[in-house]
Amino acid sequence: MKKHNFSAGPCILPQSVFQKAADAVLNFNGIDLSILEISHRSKDFVAVMDRARALVLEHLGLQDKGYEALFLQGGASMQFLMVAYNLLEKKAAYLDTGTWANKSIKEAKLLGEVAVVASSSDKNYNYIPKGYHIPNDADYFHCTSNNTIFGTQMQAFPKTDIPMVCDMSSDIFSRQLDFSQFDLIYAGAQKNMGPAGATLVVVKKELLGKVSRTIPSMLNYQTHIGKESMFNTPPVFSVYVSMLTLEWLKEQGGITAIEKTNREKAALIYSEIDRNALFKGFVANTEDRSMMNATFNLTNDAVKEQFDAMLKEAGINGLNGHRSVGGYRASMYNALSFDSVQVLVDVMQELERKN
Amino acid sequence: MKKHNFSAGPCILPQSVFQKAADAVLNFNGIDLSILEISHRSKDFVAVMDRARALVLEHLGLQDKGYEALFLQGGASMQFLMVAYNLLEKKAAYLDTGTWANKSIKEAKLLGEVAVVASSSDKNYNYIPKGYHIPNDADYFHCTSNNTIFGTQMQAFPKTDIPMVCDMSSDIFSRQLDFSQFDLIYAGAQKNMGPAGATLVVVKKELLGKVSRTIPSMLNYQTHIGKESMFNTPPVFSVYVSMLTLEWLKEQGGITAIEKTNREKAALIYSEIDRNALFKGFVANTEDRSMMNATFNLTNDAVKEQFDAMLKEAGINGLNGHRSVGGYRASMYNALSFDSVQVLVDVMQELERKN
Repeated sequence: MKKHNFSAGPCILPQSVFQKAADAVLNFNGIDLSILEISHRSKDFVAVMDRARALVLEHLGLQDKGYEALFLQGGASMQFLMVAYNLLEKKAAYLDTGTWANKSIKEAKLLGEVAVVASSSDKNYNYIPKGYHIPNDADYFHCTSNNTIFGTQMQAFPKTDIPMVCDMSSDIFSRQLDFSQFDLIYAGAQKNMGPAGATLVVVKKELLGKVSRTIPSMLNYQTHIGKESMFNTPPVFSVYVSMLTLEWLKEQGGITAIEKTNREKAALIYSEIDRNALFKGFVANTEDRSMMNATFNLTNDAVKEQFDAMLKEAGINGLNGHRSVGGYRASMYNALSFDSVQVLVDVMQELERKN
Repeated sequence: MKKHNFSAGPCILPQSVFQKAADAVLNFNGIDLSILEISHRSKDFVAVMDRARALVLEHLGLQDKGYEALFLQGGASMQFLMVAYNLLEKKAAYLDTGTWANKSIKEAKLLGEVAVVASSSDKNYNYIPKGYHIPNDADYFHCTSNNTIFGTQMQAFPKTDIPMVCDMSSDIFSRQLDFSQFDLIYAGAQKNMGPAGATLVVVKKELLGKVSRTIPSMLNYQTHIGKESMFNTPPVFSVYVSMLTLEWLKEQGGITAIEKTNREKAALIYSEIDRNALFKGFVANTEDRSMMNATFNLTNDAVKEQFDAMLKEAGINGLNGHRSVGGYRASMYNALSFDSVQVLVDVMQELERKN
């Protein structure tokens, strides 16, 4: 049965990528070995790592601009710590837009002073704060571009003279931005890039080496840059599947082309949420709505059981809201088709007709 | 062409595991979704994580003894840091038996005093030191059970009153030991357990919570124990394939049965190294030889090209020694068959006949 996978992450990846990944588990590159059993130092895998790193910079338009792309481990949660370890000498400025932003603040506080420039925690993170002041004496400014749990997304980024660090775990490669405005970008792979187990870091080299503390080897970006992202055994399969997905994105026409589809998918679901009296969007200001994660609630809890049964019947998977918010969440990452969103909207309309 | 994969890691896993893993990439558990696209909070994956953790304790005979099994990320290299972060208050005792032991010492020194109880660095780590004294006032004793690069292995472990921590990356699940003599065991997955990208930690809970420093969330074993190894998105696929491999091990009869085969494989290769005048073992004392990694050199460099060509012809992969030692290294992890070792020995004998 055809499934429509709206899972918030790990999430849908292109079917062609699944096919190639499965093939490589049995016989990688026609070398009669599995991708799972080859040395990470073998020429076949070194080529994968090099290609994946190059594709990242190419998609982001950051080639030859002093950036390095790294595939690390530990997810964004490990980056919360690494960012502070590598960059926080005295004080850092953080924007608090949700659960993950909050967790990044918690880790940074272990290593220095944190100035929270603004927070939307007063309204359970249902909007993106604007008009805040970023102190010029902070070592860096940290923000979260898309808040998976709440379904909010930053549409603009502040201008600041200090380095800007951005957690793009849930919207990287989904929309065109001037990525050179960021000095460090990180993202868990498991949304638009690949399977869980790899973490992307894109860092401007000149940013590093400025804090006075001794940084443990594995937490030091310079360690990984110096070893071309192979200081120790990398998460081979996750890097390989990420490379396949980045190749697929290129075949689709890159970020510009995928953004167009993403905008169409988001317009379709949000117009239905706004039109259909049975549904209500979670996000307070429509301009803060995420193109990746549409969060909404039923206006009448009595139809929940019926709606859930209809979703199941239609092959729709992963639509439950995060346990901290409840309701529903339609995650529409790059690999999710417009047709899948249409199937969901059809179910929403059918629910309306039945009630 | 049938390959004989002697790679040091990532390394060979059972063919049946590759097949099941490839199937799950296309359709996991018959749910019409890929293992790569499902939520780590889905009941299907939670069952995988629970099963993998239970199998680890079952194989090691550590159920109901106060231990927890965790699947983390970052490899043994991250454990070098985490062990010290969680356990090192003032002083720790380390045994230096090779490159990786040395790296673990380097990270521990960032967090406290390190007493190196003995080292075999004087002879390029070609033996295992014995008869050393472990100070009773150290917070823990750390050792490396098998040294992949040099091909040495600890056949016995010291008796000590302080907690014992062991890096078993390259020989866990390969031989029966009283695993309860260890208070913390860690291992990168990519030898006997699964693909790269997961790191196993088995820790006695009563060991934790005793240091005075604040431990960052991701580096704190208690964080991961409290969230049943799902504090953040785990390396889903690597955990799944590890579970498959641990199931396979159970089908083989567990550690006791696999140890018997491993001993036969090791006896076969070492007897040939000792018998054949063209080869010489790297390890000084035969009792220190590793059952997992047999390191050896040619006694006559002139035949190297011929030997390499014959290896290739026979489908033998991954026999190069580590770049820091040179020569050859036959890694014979659990999934490598006796027949593959026989093929290698046949080539060694053919080389002798030709010269």
